[in-house]
Amino acid sequence: MNNTIGHAIALTLFGESHGEEIGAVIDGLAPGMPVDPDAVAAALARRRPKDALSTGRREPDLFRMVSGIKDGKTTGTPLAILIPNTAAHSEDYESGAFLPRPSHADYAAFCKYHGYEDRRGGGHFSGRLTAPLVAAGAILSPALAAGGVKIYAHIASLAGIEDDAFSEHTAVLDKLKDGDFPVLSEAAGEEMKEAIRAAAKDGDSVGGVVEVLVTGLPAGLGEPWFDTVEGELSKILFSVPAVKGVEFGDGFALAGMRGSEANDPFAVKDGKVVTLTNRNGGINGGITNGMPLCFSVAIKPTPSIFREQKTVNPIAKTEEVLTLHGRHDPAIVHRAVPVIEAVCAIVLSDFIARRYGTDALAGGRFAQMAKSEGCL
Amino acid sequence: MNNTIGHAIALTLFGESHGEEIGAVIDGLAPGMPVDPDAVAAALARRRPKDALSTGRREPDLFRMVSGIKDGKTTGTPLAILIPNTAAHSEDYESGAFLPRPSHADYAAFCKYHGYEDRRGGGHFSGRLTAPLVAAGAILSPALAAGGVKIYAHIASLAGIEDDAFSEHTAVLDKLKDGDFPVLSEAAGEEMKEAIRAAAKDGDSVGGVVEVLVTGLPAGLGEPWFDTVEGELSKILFSVPAVKGVEFGDGFALAGMRGSEANDPFAVKDGKVVTLTNRNGGINGGITNGMPLCFSVAIKPTPSIFREQKTVNPIAKTEEVLTLHGRHDPAIVHRAVPVIEAVCAIVLSDFIARRYGTDALAGGRFAQMAKSEGCL
Amino acid sequence: MNNTIGHAIALTLFGESHGEEIGAVIDGLAPGMPVDPDAVAAALARRRPKDALSTGRREPDLFRMVSGIKDGKTTGTPLAILIPNTAAHSEDYESGAFLPRPSHADYAAFCKYHGYEDRRGGGHFSGRLTAPLVAAGAILSPALAAGGVKIYAHIASLAGIEDDAFSEHTAVLDKLKDGDFPVLSEAAGEEMKEAIRAAAKDGDSVGGVVEVLVTGLPAGLGEPWFDTVEGELSKILFSVPAVKGVEFGDGFALAGMRGSEANDPFAVKDGKVVTLTNRNGGINGGITNGMPLCFSVAIKPTPSIFREQKTVNPIAKTEEVLTLHGRHDPAIVHRAVPVIEAVCAIVLSDFIARRYGTDALAGGRFAQMAKSEGCL
Amino acid sequence: MNNTIGHAIALTLFGESHGEEIGAVIDGLAPGMPVDPDAVAAALARRRPKDALSTGRREPDLFRMVSGIKDGKTTGTPLAILIPNTAAHSEDYESGAFLPRPSHADYAAFCKYHGYEDRRGGGHFSGRLTAPLVAAGAILSPALAAGGVKIYAHIASLAGIEDDAFSEHTAVLDKLKDGDFPVLSEAAGEEMKEAIRAAAKDGDSVGGVVEVLVTGLPAGLGEPWFDTVEGELSKILFSVPAVKGVEFGDGFALAGMRGSEANDPFAVKDGKVVTLTNRNGGINGGITNGMPLCFSVAIKPTPSIFREQKTVNPIAKTEEVLTLHGRHDPAIVHRAVPVIEAVCAIVLSDFIARRYGTDALAGGRFAQMAKSEGCL
Repeated sequence: MNNTIGHAIALTLFGESHGEEIGAVIDGLAPGMPVDPDAVAAALARRRPKDALSTGRREPDLFRMVSGIKDGKTTGTPLAILIPNTAAHSEDYESGAFLPRPSHADYAAFCKYHGYEDRRGGGHFSGRLTAPLVAAGAILSPALAAGGVKIYAHIASLAGIEDDAFSEHTAVLDKLKDGDFPVLSEAAGEEMKEAIRAAAKDGDSVGGVVEVLVTGLPAGLGEPWFDTVEGELSKILFSVPAVKGVEFGDGFALAGMRGSEANDPFAVKDGKVVTLTNRNGGINGGITNGMPLCFSVAIKPTPSIFREQKTVNPIAKTEEVLTLHGRHDPAIVHRAVPVIEAVCAIVLSDFIARRYGTDALAGGRFAQMAKSEGCL
Repeated sequence: MNNTIGHAIALTLFGESHGEEIGAVIDGLAPGMPVDPDAVAAALARRRPKDALSTGRREPDLFRMVSGIKDGKTTGTPLAILIPNTAAHSEDYESGAFLPRPSHADYAAFCKYHGYEDRRGGGHFSGRLTAPLVAAGAILSPALAAGGVKIYAHIASLAGIEDDAFSEHTAVLDKLKDGDFPVLSEAAGEEMKEAIRAAAKDGDSVGGVVEVLVTGLPAGLGEPWFDTVEGELSKILFSVPAVKGVEFGDGFALAGMRGSEANDPFAVKDGKVVTLTNRNGGINGGITNGMPLCFSVAIKPTPSIFREQKTVNPIAKTEEVLTLHGRHDPAIVHRAVPVIEAVCAIVLSDFIARRYGTDALAGGRFAQMAKSEGCL
Repeated sequence: MNNTIGHAIALTLFGESHGEEIGAVIDGLAPGMPVDPDAVAAALARRRPKDALSTGRREPDLFRMVSGIKDGKTTGTPLAILIPNTAAHSEDYESGAFLPRPSHADYAAFCKYHGYEDRRGGGHFSGRLTAPLVAAGAILSPALAAGGVKIYAHIASLAGIEDDAFSEHTAVLDKLKDGDFPVLSEAAGEEMKEAIRAAAKDGDSVGGVVEVLVTGLPAGLGEPWFDTVEGELSKILFSVPAVKGVEFGDGFALAGMRGSEANDPFAVKDGKVVTLTNRNGGINGGITNGMPLCFSVAIKPTPSIFREQKTVNPIAKTEEVLTLHGRHDPAIVHRAVPVIEAVCAIVLSDFIARRYGTDALAGGRFAQMAKSEGCL
Repeated sequence: MNNTIGHAIALTLFGESHGEEIGAVIDGLAPGMPVDPDAVAAALARRRPKDALSTGRREPDLFRMVSGIKDGKTTGTPLAILIPNTAAHSEDYESGAFLPRPSHADYAAFCKYHGYEDRRGGGHFSGRLTAPLVAAGAILSPALAAGGVKIYAHIASLAGIEDDAFSEHTAVLDKLKDGDFPVLSEAAGEEMKEAIRAAAKDGDSVGGVVEVLVTGLPAGLGEPWFDTVEGELSKILFSVPAVKGVEFGDGFALAGMRGSEANDPFAVKDGKVVTLTNRNGGINGGITNGMPLCFSVAIKPTPSIFREQKTVNPIAKTEEVLTLHGRHDPAIVHRAVPVIEAVCAIVLSDFIARRYGTDALAGGRFAQMAKSEGCL
C-alpha cells in the first residue's frame, strides 16, 4: 500500500503542501498510552522553520487529534492527526508555464500523475508532509522511553563541517533535544550555521549527514528476510525528502576494512553479553543484538535554489531557464533531525508491537517481557 | 509479513543452510512469460563459489520449478522454485558449545529464537538463501529486457581498490555478465583478486562496494510516501547478508555538495526530457525520472574469518576464544553482484506490475504502455 | 493492517461516534478521476437516518475532501475525506456504571481495549463509521460506471417479508437508487415499513437481507488463493455492523441441490460466452466469469432495543438489568443498502486496479483493456 | 498478495493438481513449537479420498517439511511443507478441445490467465491444494490446544439431511475427529452416505453445510475495521473450493428475528461474564466475546458430474456437449470438514499472534497472557 507503512503499528499519510489539511492516521496503538498534546506541539516546533536558516514560511502547526484518544490516553483505535495548511502562498507557484525544478520531484511527479498532480509547493512531495510523521513520533517516543528506549540524533556533518562523534555521556546526549540545531560541538554548530548563511547569500543550499543513536533496545528485534531493522528503517528514511543514502554502523567505511577490523568482539559485562566495539551499529543479520542501534542518513542540499537553472517545459518539450521565487530552505539538515528521530520511533515501535503484541507499548510492558526472556 | 516481499509480484523465501531444501515462491507473475531453465542455471552458476576466491562449499544447485510453469511458460499462478542442500557439512557446526561468531547473525538469532534456531551454517541467515533470489531474478530479467530494461552491476571497489566508473558504452556493460568477477577495468579486477588472496592467506576477509546501473526504465515508477524506488530497493538490499549501506546517485557525496552542484539540469534531447548530469541516480522524490537508475551497496568483509576472535558463551555467560573451521569466503563482494542484480529485477518488476497491471510483464507490454503515455 | 483494506486501492478508516471527526483516506486512486461533491453528498444523504424508520440522530454530514483533489479531479495522491461529528448526545452514554448492551460490541470492545475504549455511541464500532465508506463508494462508483460496471441493491427481505426477485429490466433496477427504501415491489416495501413501525412501537427491532447485483464486470477478476472476489467482498462486508452472513449466487440453497441443478450450463449468445442460469452468482473458483455478480447479506436486527434486557457490570461482575435510552434505529437494513453498495464499489475497484494497473480506473480505461483481451 | 494470507502468521500456497509438487510456506511460527509428523499425516489422511464416497484418485500424501524445523520443533523461521503429486492421470484432461466444465473454475481461469493456465485436474484451483492447508492446520492445532482452544466441526446437513445440533458434551465433540464422516447422529450419517451413493449412481453430486464450534478462545480477538474474526475467517473459507456461503451464529436466520430474540443476554457464571444464548456465535462487533465461536459454511454440490452438460468451446465460440470422464467426488462435504477446521486454526493462530506477540503460540503462553488480563 502506497502511503501506509508498518505492520502491527501502521501509519497512513495524506496531504499536499498547499491543500486544505495534511495528516496521518496511526493504527495499532496499544490502548492506554498517555498522549501529551504539549509534547506533540513541542516536537512540531522543533521541525518548524524558525530563523534565517530556514524558509520564510511560518506556520503554527495547529494540529488536532480527532480520533483514537479519550481522557488523554489512546483508546487503541486509529488516532487521526490533522494539521491545517494556513500559510500557503500558492500564487508563488501558479503563474506561468510548468517548469520543473531540477532535482525536485516536479518532473517525476508529472510523469507519474500525468499532470493531474497538485504542484503547488511540491504538493504531496513537500517536506511539509513530514509534520504528521513528527507528530506520530512524539506520540510513540514516550512509550518507547517508558520501556527504556531512547533515540538521539545530531548533525554529524554539514557542508563538509564535522560535528564531534557520539559520546556515551547521557548528559550530553539529552542536550541534543534542547535547541533547534542539534550538534555535540557548539563550535562546529556555529561553523555549520555560517556555512548555511553563506550558501543562502549565494542563492545556493547545502546538505549534510544526520547520525542517530538508539539505546535500550531489546535484542532480537527484526526479521532476517526481509523485514530487517536496517531494511524497514531505510525504506521509510528514503521517503523523507532529500535523503539519498543510509548506512548502519560504520556503513560504507566497513567496505574498506578487513574482517578482523570490522568484526565486533563479544564480551560479558555485568552479566550481559556486549560487544567491545559497535562497528555493525547494533545489528547483525538484520536483528538487534542489544548494543546501541547506530545509523547515518545522507541529506542532499535542498534542490530549491535561487540561482538560474536549466530546465524544460515538458509539455512543449522546449529548453528553458528557471529562476525561483518563493520561500525555500538553504538547508534542511537540521530540520530533518526530528523527522529522522520520528521515523526511527515509528519503525521501532512497530517491531516491538510485532514481537511483544498489541499491548506491549503501553506502560513499558515490552521491556518487562524482553527482560524476562533475557533480551534486555 | 516477515519472509515475503513485494506487492503485485510477491516473493516468499524459506530454508536453512543445512536444511533439506531452500526455495522461494514467486507470486503474481504474468501468464505467458517464457522461463528458460538454462538461464536460471546460468544465473545460479554466477552466484556459486567456484575458485580459490570463495568458500570451499561446492553445490550444483539442482533446482526444480515445481509449480506455476507449463510448456516453458508461466501460468500466472505461484511459481515455486526448490533447491536441495546437498553439500552441507553439518559436523563443522555441531560440535561443542554455542560460541557465536562476532558480527555474524548467530547471537542476534539466539536472542530472537531463544535457541531453537538452526545454527548450522548460519541457518536461515546464510548467504545460501540468496540462491532462490538469484533464480527469481533470472526468471524476471528476460521479461524486463523484453521491455528494454537492462540491469548492470560491477564491483566499484574492493579492499579500497577502485574499478573504473560506469561507462555509457553498452558493449562494455554487456561484458559484465560474462565472467564471475564483474569489473570494468581488468587491471583493477586483478588487483582486487590479489587483495582477496592476500586476506585469505592472513585468515582474514575483505569488503567492497557494488554499483548498479539500470537503463530503459519508464519514468513515473514509485510512490512518494512510502514506496519509493529507493526505499523498496534498499529494504530488500539490506536483507542481503553483509550489506551495511545503500546510496542512490552520488549518495553520501551529495551531502557535501551545494545545490548548484548537486542538481541535475534538465534538457531536451531527441524530443525527450533528459538531465545533463545524473547525480540523483535517476530518481527524484522517490520516483523514476527516465534517466538511468544508479545506486551503490556497501558490503562489509565476511565476518567468518580464521583468526582467533573474542566471543562468549551466551548461555553460561562466559568469555571465550573462537577459532573457526569449516568453509568460508574471504570475500563475498563478487558473489553479491548477481544477488544485487536479482534484487533489483525483483523490485523493479513489482513496480511495473503495480503501475501497468498483472499482464504488464509479459511480452514487454509495459514498455508499450509507458511509451503511449510518454513515460518512455 | 487493522483499519486498512485493499491492495492497489487502499482505504484507511478512523473515528468514533462521538469523537471530533470521522473519516477515511483513500489511496491508489488513478489521477484524473472526476469527483463530484454533490454525488458524495447525495450518497451520504441516502445513508443518513431521515424519518420515523430510523434513529432520531440527525446530522448534515458536512464532509470535506482535504487532499488528493485538484480542480474537481483526483490527483493520484491519497484523498482524505473528513466528516465532523456535530449531533452527538454524549450524555446519553456517560451516566452511571458501564452496562454493556447485549449483542452490541460494548463488552467485546471492553475485553479488547481494557476499558480505554471510547464507549459513547458505540465509539469506533458505531454504524456512523460507515459514512466514510459511503463517501468512498460515491467517489469510485462513477469510475466503475464509466467502464460499464453498475451496482444495484435492494432489501430482499425484512422481518420475513420478501421483495420481488431481481429483474433484468434495467429501468426497474435504476429506480432502486431513487428513494431511501430500495425495493422492487412497492407493496412489499410498504409492508416492510409497517413491520419496522410495529417493532419500534414494541421497543424492538427487525433485521433483513440485502441482495446485490453487479453488471458489466470483466471476466477474470480475482485470485483463486486467497484473494477471491467472494472472499474479499465478504471480509469487508462482515465489518459492516450487524452483518452475520454472506452468500454468493444461490448460496446456502446450493447446499441442498444436486450438481445437475446447481451447475450453470454454458452457451454462446451474440458471440459471447454466457451461462444459461446464474446460480453461482457470476463467480467460479473465486474469479468473475462475465455473468452478473450476485450476493446476499444477512443483517441482524439492531441490537439496541428499548426493552428491558439482562446484562452485567463486567467490572463488578454483577448481574444487572438494562433499559436503553437515547436514539436507536428499529431497523438498519435500508440504511445498510448504500453501505453495502459502497463496499462493493471499493472492493471491485481494487480488483480492477490490481489487474489493469494504476491508471485503469480513469476514463473507463479498464473496460477497453478488458475488451481487447476478450474479457468483456 | 494473491496467494498469501495472514499477518503475524502468514501462509503462502502453491501448486497445481497435476504439477510436480504442491505445498505451503508457513511464516511467523513461534520458535519451539513441537511438530508431530504423525499428526500431520493423520490430518492429511482425514482429508484424503478413501472409499466409494470419494474420487478414485488415491495418493499417500508423502509430505516433507524441508525448513523451519529442528529436533521436532519449529525454529521460528519459515516452515515449508511439500507434497509431491504422484497419482495424476493427466491423460484424462489432455485430449481434445478445451471444453470448460459448467460451474467449475475452468472458464474463469481461462479468462484470467489467457489460456496459459495448467488446466489438468483443475490446476491451481483443484481441491488438492487444500492438502497443504490441512497440514498447516495440523501444525497449529496442537499449539492452540496447549492454550485450551479446541476446534470441532461436523456435517450439519447433506443433501437436505440434517445432523443433530452441536452438543455441549465434550465427549461427543471429541468423537468427531475419529472417523472420516464427522456427524453427531450416526443415523443421520448413514442417511447422508446413502444420499451420496444415490447421487453417484445417477452420475450426479450433492452438497451440504459444515458447522464449526471453537471453545476456549480468549475474548478480545479481532479488529472492528476491517480485520474482524468473521471477515478474516470468511475470506479464507471462500477460497476453499465449492464454498458459497458463510454465516456466524444463527446467521441468515437472525435476519428474520426481532432484536429481543436475537440478542444474547449477559449473565455472570462462576465469576465469568457469559451470555445465556449464543445466537451471535461468540462474536460481537467482529471481536470474540469469550463464548464459543460458531459458524456454518455452505458447500455446493461438486460441479464435476457425469451427466451430459451444455458447455462451449470458448476459443471457437461454439456450443458443445460435455461428458466427463476421470475421477470425481460425488460429494466433498465430508472431505471439506478437516479443511475448514484447518482454515479455522490458521486464522485464529494469526489473531492470537497479532495480539500476544511472536512467541505467544508456543507452550500455551497466550492463554496465560489472556488470563492475566481477564480475557479468558
